[in-house]
Amino acid sequence: MSLPRIPRDPENDYSREAARHRRDLASEQTGARLDHVGQYSFDPSVLPGNIENFIGVAQVPIGLAGPLLIDGEYAKGEFYVPMATTEGTLVASYSRGMKMVAEAGGVRTTVVDDRMQRAPAFIFDSAREARDFVTWLDEHEPEVRKAAESTTSTGKLIEIERYHASRFVYTRFNFTTGDAAGQNMVSKATWAACEWIRANCSPLRDYMLDAQLSTDKKHSQINTLRTRGKRVIAEVQIPSNILEKHMRVTSRQVFQARQISNQGAMLSGSSANTPHPANGIASVFIATGQDEANVAEAQAAIGYTELRGEDSDYYYSITLPALIVATYGGGTALPTQSECLDLLGCKGSGKVNKLAEIIAATVLCGDLSLGSAVVADEWVGAHDELGRNR
Amino acid sequence: MSLPRIPRDPENDYSREAARHRRDLASEQTGARLDHVGQYSFDPSVLPGNIENFIGVAQVPIGLAGPLLIDGEYAKGEFYVPMATTEGTLVASYSRGMKMVAEAGGVRTTVVDDRMQRAPAFIFDSAREARDFVTWLDEHEPEVRKAAESTTSTGKLIEIERYHASRFVYTRFNFTTGDAAGQNMVSKATWAACEWIRANCSPLRDYMLDAQLSTDKKHSQINTLRTRGKRVIAEVQIPSNILEKHMRVTSRQVFQARQISNQGAMLSGSSANTPHPANGIASVFIATGQDEANVAEAQAAIGYTELRGEDSDYYYSITLPALIVATYGGGTALPTQSECLDLLGCKGSGKVNKLAEIIAATVLCGDLSLGSAVVADEWVGAHDELGRNR
Amino acid sequence: MSLPRIPRDPENDYSREAARHRRDLASEQTGARLDHVGQYSFDPSVLPGNIENFIGVAQVPIGLAGPLLIDGEYAKGEFYVPMATTEGTLVASYSRGMKMVAEAGGVRTTVVDDRMQRAPAFIFDSAREARDFVTWLDEHEPEVRKAAESTTSTGKLIEIERYHASRFVYTRFNFTTGDAAGQNMVSKATWAACEWIRANCSPLRDYMLDAQLSTDKKHSQINTLRTRGKRVIAEVQIPSNILEKHMRVTSRQVFQARQISNQGAMLSGSSANTPHPANGIASVFIATGQDEANVAEAQAAIGYTELRGEDSDYYYSITLPALIVATYGGGTALPTQSECLDLLGCKGSGKVNKLAEIIAATVLCGDLSLGSAVVADEWVGAHDELGRNR
Amino acid sequence: MSLPRIPRDPENDYSREAARHRRDLASEQTGARLDHVGQYSFDPSVLPGNIENFIGVAQVPIGLAGPLLIDGEYAKGEFYVPMATTEGTLVASYSRGMKMVAEAGGVRTTVVDDRMQRAPAFIFDSAREARDFVTWLDEHEPEVRKAAESTTSTGKLIEIERYHASRFVYTRFNFTTGDAAGQNMVSKATWAACEWIRANCSPLRDYMLDAQLSTDKKHSQINTLRTRGKRVIAEVQIPSNILEKHMRVTSRQVFQARQISNQGAMLSGSSANTPHPANGIASVFIATGQDEANVAEAQAAIGYTELRGEDSDYYYSITLPALIVATYGGGTALPTQSECLDLLGCKGSGKVNKLAEIIAATVLCGDLSLGSAVVADEWVGAHDELGRNR
Repeated sequence: MSLPRIPRDPENDYSREAARHRRDLASEQTGARLDHVGQYSFDPSVLPGNIENFIGVAQVPIGLAGPLLIDGEYAKGEFYVPMATTEGTLVASYSRGMKMVAEAGGVRTTVVDDRMQRAPAFIFDSAREARDFVTWLDEHEPEVRKAAESTTSTGKLIEIERYHASRFVYTRFNFTTGDAAGQNMVSKATWAACEWIRANCSPLRDYMLDAQLSTDKKHSQINTLRTRGKRVIAEVQIPSNILEKHMRVTSRQVFQARQISNQGAMLSGSSANTPHPANGIASVFIATGQDEANVAEAQAAIGYTELRGEDSDYYYSITLPALIVATYGGGTALPTQSECLDLLGCKGSGKVNKLAEIIAATVLCGDLSLGSAVVADEWVGAHDELGRNR
Repeated sequence: MSLPRIPRDPENDYSREAARHRRDLASEQTGARLDHVGQYSFDPSVLPGNIENFIGVAQVPIGLAGPLLIDGEYAKGEFYVPMATTEGTLVASYSRGMKMVAEAGGVRTTVVDDRMQRAPAFIFDSAREARDFVTWLDEHEPEVRKAAESTTSTGKLIEIERYHASRFVYTRFNFTTGDAAGQNMVSKATWAACEWIRANCSPLRDYMLDAQLSTDKKHSQINTLRTRGKRVIAEVQIPSNILEKHMRVTSRQVFQARQISNQGAMLSGSSANTPHPANGIASVFIATGQDEANVAEAQAAIGYTELRGEDSDYYYSITLPALIVATYGGGTALPTQSECLDLLGCKGSGKVNKLAEIIAATVLCGDLSLGSAVVADEWVGAHDELGRNR
Repeated sequence: MSLPRIPRDPENDYSREAARHRRDLASEQTGARLDHVGQYSFDPSVLPGNIENFIGVAQVPIGLAGPLLIDGEYAKGEFYVPMATTEGTLVASYSRGMKMVAEAGGVRTTVVDDRMQRAPAFIFDSAREARDFVTWLDEHEPEVRKAAESTTSTGKLIEIERYHASRFVYTRFNFTTGDAAGQNMVSKATWAACEWIRANCSPLRDYMLDAQLSTDKKHSQINTLRTRGKRVIAEVQIPSNILEKHMRVTSRQVFQARQISNQGAMLSGSSANTPHPANGIASVFIATGQDEANVAEAQAAIGYTELRGEDSDYYYSITLPALIVATYGGGTALPTQSECLDLLGCKGSGKVNKLAEIIAATVLCGDLSLGSAVVADEWVGAHDELGRNR
Repeated sequence: MSLPRIPRDPENDYSREAARHRRDLASEQTGARLDHVGQYSFDPSVLPGNIENFIGVAQVPIGLAGPLLIDGEYAKGEFYVPMATTEGTLVASYSRGMKMVAEAGGVRTTVVDDRMQRAPAFIFDSAREARDFVTWLDEHEPEVRKAAESTTSTGKLIEIERYHASRFVYTRFNFTTGDAAGQNMVSKATWAACEWIRANCSPLRDYMLDAQLSTDKKHSQINTLRTRGKRVIAEVQIPSNILEKHMRVTSRQVFQARQISNQGAMLSGSSANTPHPANGIASVFIATGQDEANVAEAQAAIGYTELRGEDSDYYYSITLPALIVATYGGGTALPTQSECLDLLGCKGSGKVNKLAEIIAATVLCGDLSLGSAVVADEWVGAHDELGRNR
């Protein structure tokens, strides 16, 4: 099978002149000025691999939240978290949560799983041949693994999940991906595996490299169950008096609100039962050069609460089952993005779990703050004070 | 009931000096340089309402996709679409789809619904009192509406949905929001309605301003069913020879791939059955100052396909049930963001549906391109050529 | 449009002789004896409308659970509940829950909604025509209602829900159905409405009488949200000492178990977060002549718990959003089924809400019993004692 | 840990006299006559393990559908299918589908997976200890397996799935269960495994034998993905002229209807995208002594369609991911139930997959018939003719 390429666009010239030329053309045709878009601080020659038809940049304001105290396995100590957002109140609210959590001893974070998928469907003439393929795949896993791993120096094939429907076997090829998010790495590796299978499995009619089980840039129950990217858990136990001091609500009130919300999440069929994980995730993603479209997956979250002890201290944990992060590849090496990673001590190799822990801890603090504000009836007021009336 | 405020952070000084001071502090404590972050082209005095503890900006590269030909009710003609992303191949792939679609006569777009929610839960002593509240609410809807709408000049209360579980009535207050996304507007209006209800409905014990039925910054089935933000549909019919010329696949092959993918989406419990709507949405969101966290909702998509006529022309439609967009408020007035809105002809009042149509058309083109690349086995190759090896 | 009928099977002779003849034929060809199947106590002439090709009966054992003390609006006082099942332990476990609940003052039950649906999809050439149909439908609702209600003396059209995707408007026609479950009634009424629409709405291309939004004999999130059949809530508050006496667990232990289970339900994407509502529902359904296939919908359940007061009394409520029951039509008039309805005081007109309350109360008691047994580690032992080792 | 038992009810006397005595008591208190309930053809001494507080039977009419032609691995040839139902039209409609399918060469059936679960949650002090338990479990799998399998002669532990959230590891212990449905078998085996783990894993705080991941007697996405009971696929290819002859619709019309329905299923968040699998399943379940509450799980179904060849022949497959069936244990040995199993050639050991294939083939035929009737606009008419006006 041949692999025809998208023809290389001759206009993909990564120079300031080329970018200006494109802006001028666009302005001419639309009447729009693109002055601020054209003001960026770096040499566009760093951009190949990140963008085509480059014209300039979006300047997204960054606020600093924190300090955030983390007791993780990779992230230890205090962090200032850069959040790129245009939503007023957001940084202030996350900071408020971080302040309370610091007084309670910090957030404990744990990365419990790590895997990235490509999900080919294998096509057969009948369900019976499809079923037999599952056995065939078991028998040939070493060769399949070898074909897959031949394309990458860092990725390791962890597991091939199989889901059978009609005359198709839907699979998920799960890989470790080192410091990268790994979507392209796993595409190449899975493609190589599929080609080996195509060459060696005679009943196979064809395959489709991805058939909605990855589920790349989408939310899904399978991601919640079986992890996509990092699965990270953040936990905290907040003495009730500290909660009251910072949030002006009792732990019993916040606990009750979570109960009502959990029932609401079940009614609505929601991807998350906590206040707003996507806010923390999206803003750190933009600041640190993560793929924004992965907010689709990463926003899934499962909150769990307990009242503990005589004083009803508040235990809160949040499980992020599909947090896709990288400290290598994608936008992570771009200038502002790289600086923000550096700010978090997440530049260089071996830091991706640290970043995952920081984001999970951030999400936890933001959920505590907004969750309490709703109970204390401060939510509307805070946005009035700090936000735009959108 | 008093409304305590988040104490105003004295450091929220929106000057270049204050921002530099914060950067210096952060650099000092972490050793990270924040030079590029500190280079922005605007006066930070525009920022109040968008960020707190401002230190600088994330510079996210923008590429220009298009021209995109749209036959909408608000968007008519050709558009250059600014996409802010760090994922190589993305702009090229969307452009490829746009080129094909233009040759096929363009995308037809239709905004079919428009509503933003806040979702209070009303708390009673028993299910019976909760049930009776539903009747009470019917009887007092005029007063409730008046209380809600007293807080806003543009928002109108469309409908109060009611979902009853246990001793709670979970509601969704649905509003029109003009050119704004409207989350804060509906918070204030709903809060005012709730306070009126609290004062006038004696069996009511308490309420919670949002209890996971909005479902703000989360995906949910209720959003897919009942709309959040704009519900927009993009449609195209592509002659089979045009599809083959641009995508090197037949319409029958692409159609079959969608069938297999639809079954995959049902297996995985996915929020979307199309290739990658979130990519187009997230990148236009960043470029135009939308709230990135709303990618959580907006990524939901329902694709539908048909083969038509003797030549098996390819009809494809995509329904975006929860596209939250604004041309007013939030980040839309910031410098680069405002320029990108201007580039799309979406600056000024009365343009928000136009923006919604452009984004839906963009998503359709990107899905056609990636969906075809998977079938043509060009996906891996394209990323090799244009992307970073992540 | 013509309405061709399924040809009337000449063998559909409802006599003992015809049934025996069919049994003999079947036995002859398969070697199986059908002696017990052939022993039924009624005249098969009662059967037309319930079965075709009648050969005899399944004899399903009925056990009596109770007494069950209910404080409902329709069901008041004590009830013996006939449960037809072959699962050992089931009747004993439900009885155990009923005994405890009676000591706690009984179950409070409330029917909060009541509606049955047929869900036609209306087909247009484009999304735009489909959208305009929604407005058209608003304008013509009186005529549509008239057409629908012309087919039935008891059903009233409550509401037409509309969900727009691609070039289709998916609707749910919601009706009250009196004492009947009403699926056929709503089919006829909705068909008549659709035919009127077809005759009067010129852009309409065609319609499909049901397109998976009813969702008849299937579970769905839309049923959980918007009710199918009766929406019933059962509540109880059990003093902690009574819970301990009967269940050998503390209220705090049971509460904690529900918390862990709720998180489990969110992980698994489950239709219910309580132990086993389907057991109570299915067994009362068989005993009282309900449509067993509606267990598919009726099994959905949302449990909610609280610890109350100094002694941590246990509040438990269960919301059944899709309980489809009848006291008229279907199998309700058959001999044993009718007797069991009579046993519950649910024979005759105006008793269907009473039956709904009894079933909801039954489900609550069964969930309390099994939920406690799991915590007390008595579950396996009980099945060892009373069940078959399946 | 002690295992207190439910006290043996002294009234659980399995004699005709005891049953009559209970009926008399019930009649006395309620005024209801239970004459037909009291007429059963067997000696109640067969009942221990199936029911408590026995009073008599529900007589559910059985109709014979067929002949059904199956080309399975276990079921081969023609079958008469006993369906116990009170829904008029059901048997006739399934028979209609069977007739068409027979002319098309029969249904091909394949059992592709087989597993029954109990799903304990393991409780730790922290997420970190929970994560380490996953490794511990890998290392001790032989001992855990030994403990589990020591309780059963037929069940084998296939796999322990692990899903981590908060400080809990939710597992699914998957077993083969021979001819039994196996819920009790897996409860005992899993309980033994858990007790071994409790004794040997010191950081473990406690466990809960089931925490909503089984998900016993409930629908869930995890069942659809990972199978509960048998995963069976039925396929058929129907020449277009045969479809037209029997169903009075073209294959293109039926295909289009499935497309619209699939989109509808995605909108509604439905457990099945086919017309009415639960009807076939529930009626064969009652006739053959299956656990009716398992209709909750078994109703999940994924339909997939293709048009094939010049004449647009109709390929239809249905995947049942959670079909829980038994030929041993439960109600299968009761008199009428055993006779119906015998009628299908499913009595005795080694027949459970045959039964699974027959049910899947039945479901396929019923879906084809109703799916076509909706398109041909015959649905309402058929129920008018053969059904009760419910």
